Amino acid sequence: MGFLKADGAVYKPVDDIDLGPNSNELYLKADVKAPRMAGFVVKVFAWCLELRIIGTVLLYILIAKNRVHRLVSFAEMEESPLYVPVHPCEDAEEREDIISLSPDASPAEKVVQAVACLPSVSEKSTGFPKPTFHRWTIMDYSHAYNSAEITPLMVAEQFIAAVRHSSSPSFQMGFFINCNFEDILRQATESTLRYKQGKQISVLDGVPIAVKDEIDCLPYPTTGGTKWLHKVRSCKEDAYCVRHIRQCGAIIVGKTNMHELGAGTSGLNPHYGATRNPYNKDRVTGGSSSGSAAVVSSGLCPAALGVDGGGSVRMPAALCGVVGFKPTFQRVSHSGVIPLNWTVGMVGVLAGTVEDAFIVYAAISGQLPSEQPTEETLLPRVCLPRLEADAVSNIKMAKYGEWFNDCSEEIRICCSNALNQFRKCYGWETLEVTIPEIEVMRLAHYLTIGSECSSSLSSYIKKVDRAESGWDVRVALSVYGAFNSKEYLNAQRIRNRQMHFHRKIFARADVIVCPTTGVTAYSIMDDALKTGELDYVNGAALVRYQIAGNFLGLPAITVPVGYDKDGLPIGLQFIGKPWSEPLLIQIASAVQALCMAEYRKPQVFYDLLSKKAEVSKSFKSI
Amino acid sequence: MGFLKADGAVYKPVDDIDLGPNSNELYLKADVKAPRMAGFVVKVFAWCLELRIIGTVLLYILIAKNRVHRLVSFAEMEESPLYVPVHPCEDAEEREDIISLSPDASPAEKVVQAVACLPSVSEKSTGFPKPTFHRWTIMDYSHAYNSAEITPLMVAEQFIAAVRHSSSPSFQMGFFINCNFEDILRQATESTLRYKQGKQISVLDGVPIAVKDEIDCLPYPTTGGTKWLHKVRSCKEDAYCVRHIRQCGAIIVGKTNMHELGAGTSGLNPHYGATRNPYNKDRVTGGSSSGSAAVVSSGLCPAALGVDGGGSVRMPAALCGVVGFKPTFQRVSHSGVIPLNWTVGMVGVLAGTVEDAFIVYAAISGQLPSEQPTEETLLPRVCLPRLEADAVSNIKMAKYGEWFNDCSEEIRICCSNALNQFRKCYGWETLEVTIPEIEVMRLAHYLTIGSECSSSLSSYIKKVDRAESGWDVRVALSVYGAFNSKEYLNAQRIRNRQMHFHRKIFARADVIVCPTTGVTAYSIMDDALKTGELDYVNGAALVRYQIAGNFLGLPAITVPVGYDKDGLPIGLQFIGKPWSEPLLIQIASAVQALCMAEYRKPQVFYDLLSKKAEVSKSFKSI
Repeated sequence: MGFLKADGAVYKPVDDIDLGPNSNELYLKADVKAPRMAGFVVKVFAWCLELRIIGTVLLYILIAKNRVHRLVSFAEMEESPLYVPVHPCEDAEEREDIISLSPDASPAEKVVQAVACLPSVSEKSTGFPKPTFHRWTIMDYSHAYNSAEITPLMVAEQFIAAVRHSSSPSFQMGFFINCNFEDILRQATESTLRYKQGKQISVLDGVPIAVKDEIDCLPYPTTGGTKWLHKVRSCKEDAYCVRHIRQCGAIIVGKTNMHELGAGTSGLNPHYGATRNPYNKDRVTGGSSSGSAAVVSSGLCPAALGVDGGGSVRMPAALCGVVGFKPTFQRVSHSGVIPLNWTVGMVGVLAGTVEDAFIVYAAISGQLPSEQPTEETLLPRVCLPRLEADAVSNIKMAKYGEWFNDCSEEIRICCSNALNQFRKCYGWETLEVTIPEIEVMRLAHYLTIGSECSSSLSSYIKKVDRAESGWDVRVALSVYGAFNSKEYLNAQRIRNRQMHFHRKIFARADVIVCPTTGVTAYSIMDDALKTGELDYVNGAALVRYQIAGNFLGLPAITVPVGYDKDGLPIGLQFIGKPWSEPLLIQIASAVQALCMAEYRKPQVFYDLLSKKAEVSKSFKSI
Repeated sequence: MGFLKADGAVYKPVDDIDLGPNSNELYLKADVKAPRMAGFVVKVFAWCLELRIIGTVLLYILIAKNRVHRLVSFAEMEESPLYVPVHPCEDAEEREDIISLSPDASPAEKVVQAVACLPSVSEKSTGFPKPTFHRWTIMDYSHAYNSAEITPLMVAEQFIAAVRHSSSPSFQMGFFINCNFEDILRQATESTLRYKQGKQISVLDGVPIAVKDEIDCLPYPTTGGTKWLHKVRSCKEDAYCVRHIRQCGAIIVGKTNMHELGAGTSGLNPHYGATRNPYNKDRVTGGSSSGSAAVVSSGLCPAALGVDGGGSVRMPAALCGVVGFKPTFQRVSHSGVIPLNWTVGMVGVLAGTVEDAFIVYAAISGQLPSEQPTEETLLPRVCLPRLEADAVSNIKMAKYGEWFNDCSEEIRICCSNALNQFRKCYGWETLEVTIPEIEVMRLAHYLTIGSECSSSLSSYIKKVDRAESGWDVRVALSVYGAFNSKEYLNAQRIRNRQMHFHRKIFARADVIVCPTTGVTAYSIMDDALKTGELDYVNGAALVRYQIAGNFLGLPAITVPVGYDKDGLPIGLQFIGKPWSEPLLIQIASAVQALCMAEYRKPQVFYDLLSKKAEVSKSFKSI
């Protein structure tokens, strides 16, 4: 019974741990003890796990083999549990380049302020080479609509044609779970009328924006990627974030595909089809906000909403070559989002450019008064940075070498080159540090997100036949349900430790920099299409750099910085201090300016703003 | 497999629930599905539970049969989890009868202020009949020492003789786990010298005070009632509360017996002997602070420290006829207390009189700066009430009839009579209310305390042979270890619901009033002495009225109000709003004034302040 033995790790007090570059803290690589499974094998495995007694034993072994017992459940440490990653309210210092929004401002007013922060067109020449490819931005839409060259209704028609095209048998891109063309045309007609009357609400008026199917949005059901959740949980009103972009006049163009229940990272959904990567439709998009990343990447929307509980916005953004932005915990209301996980999951934005992510972020940021943690711990004001033509200077980027390099060679080289460029062009400094226990944090986060998911869904799941869920999700739910309250509590102690480590690192650096994922978009295997896939090795490589953003509630942004030899996008990630969204956006904008010239067009790309003839041509060319 | 089915309860939104007297909310009585076990049976049961597979199945059935699944694990409710019962900082309104302590005051200064709040001796005649029996109070000790009639050293010698007497074969009262006579004499000598030099520190100087063996206190190991914990966790310094009473000059007279790991309510400890009830040595004391209650009851100390995680101070206080006081969560530092449970457990005081509980409370209240929840949510100042001769008026006591009456007939009659007396003598009003889901809260608290205990101990337990624990504790640890993270999270949702209910009730009433326990001290059975005992029926009756104090972190106090036909004490409990200690003390003091005349002397009682001859006589008489 050696495998049942699990003597726990003993962790040193946090203050005794050296966070410097020469620390003797060991970097522990993910050591995933589970073969890839799909098709018949995953069915048998799920079935075994669901057996009461055999399942219990199997789960125990599975959890123990993957070092959860040794590193978390039976570990020894002094810290008390930290259950929710709440950060003290620190209103930003008054600075010329940052404006603070009034809490009473309407979403449209916030968008106006955000637009005022963008560099003017004349300032836009950065001295860097002009990009050969770029996606249409929100400002492009706004200019086109204002010039009356094109109308929202025309774009909506183009959009519908493109969606039809993308779902044709030879493409099957799997972008949307639900897309109500009638509802889109109705919104577009209204927006078109507003422009005619000169009553457009904001730059978002008439701009197509898609919403992950984990977020409530009328007139759609919220499936969460399942075949059953909407039957037992009805969508009664728009989520906070959806209401806000709708109030800005945006056209909500449908509910994007996602990994079922967000319980995986591939974006392969057995019910609604795998979401395919616009850069190569035989590759995954990553997940769980797979559809939101893909529609932005393929040009269908300049921006889309996602939810990020374990990198679910940032991973697909990186794999699909777009920007993914996850704000600080509690910065955007969680109201109206399926509460699959509530201490790690947050609404985030996927967009073609940093500036578009910024505009949508300004529109959706805020919280319901009832969500304020307590009367004493109010949240700081939402702040927006001015994006000047000159990039932000004096940036110190903390880099943990062993972790940074724990990715494919191409990613490592590409991201390292980017850092060199930043130093050369902007004078940004790299500060070598050690972030201890990263793999431990991954396991603790996994325990937490699984427990929260299990708790949230238990009342729904009992009402449905488990056969309605995909096989990979049935395995995930079995694993989640096997977590013990003791190990959950130990995971929260680890959260507290990591909060300490990160606070110390942020005392010396402005951001932590790392690749966004350890691998680029991998192949979609045929056997996974119907059953979903268990691929914990690729899963661990994808989530490797995500966890601090979720488990510690830190803001993070991914920006495309290059491509691998197969032409698949590579993302670079910046993780910020709590409430440091303005700085993150400034940094990301400067990074984008530097890398933009190399941006490439995806294989599957729709050009909705060109005139009809050109678009048809563009459709044919893909 | 019908018994494995457990369709969960669906809870209404809290605002839809009527908390008035005519509410249609059902009062659910505890329906404990477990026979009493002791001796050989408990050994077999523990052994089965510790088998991996059979144990897992047995535990599942046991937990399901006891309605945990239906009422908690699979229940449906809207509330988000509340992990820690933190209360907003509300500094008391400025009132003439309440003084607010400076956070910088030393423990001795706090005691001086507390003493200044006591009614002067001349005021003391309350118009009520004089008591025929009362225990010596802290002020009695102080007066005796100041008059030089008797010295701390003389008391220490008497104390040692009494402890020897109480542990003699014919008594075996099981008061202490460790009692270092040399250390006691050393402290007493120093105190005696201070009095001689006129340098006494406070009224606590030279007063014997005992400490539950769950609290760190030099020179003793902290066993937690086990044979092993002190071997793997050393006691390096005094706990915060111990340091504070020591700074006041008190003589720390040893570590009192307790239910092993606080994992039971009887106070039967198989390693250090059952603590016996001074009112009848064949009865239990209740637990887990069994020894602390018994030493106060038997006159060995005017006050003792305990820890209350699920009524562990209040239950034994009630069963032993003394005062038990548990302050608001975070009012007394938890530093130096074995962290068996940290969101429900709190240091409390057991004392012969309300005034003595008050003085000790003043000495120990406060927190380490590092324990402050966050910089924003500071704790309110500690406040002390002036105890005037005239009782506090205009008190509104919330009473939930069905719950109040869910106890033995004698307790019900005694406590109801007391309420009538309060109305008659003080004009206090009773307000009939409904407190919903009390039994649900008991189960949710059980899940929480069990999970916390399991998490805290896991790193220690792996270092020792499980055979070193008592059989009843082995069963408890098996049950605790079987709790799932999902049900733990649902228990925290229930905590949030109950916080809402109680907040609403306290908007209309000053306190909640109820019996302290559902039964009086029951018999110690011979078969339980060696193995401990599993008696979930008596256990549920004891904890019935405790849970809000722990799970919601509310302050609560129990005062003796009478005796059953066997002469066993009955306690009445007041549960207060957060930070309402001053009012609770005023109320309890008035209740005591009314009931005191009927107070009876225990069978086992030591009179340490009388002159030697009398004491010996007194020893002989018991």
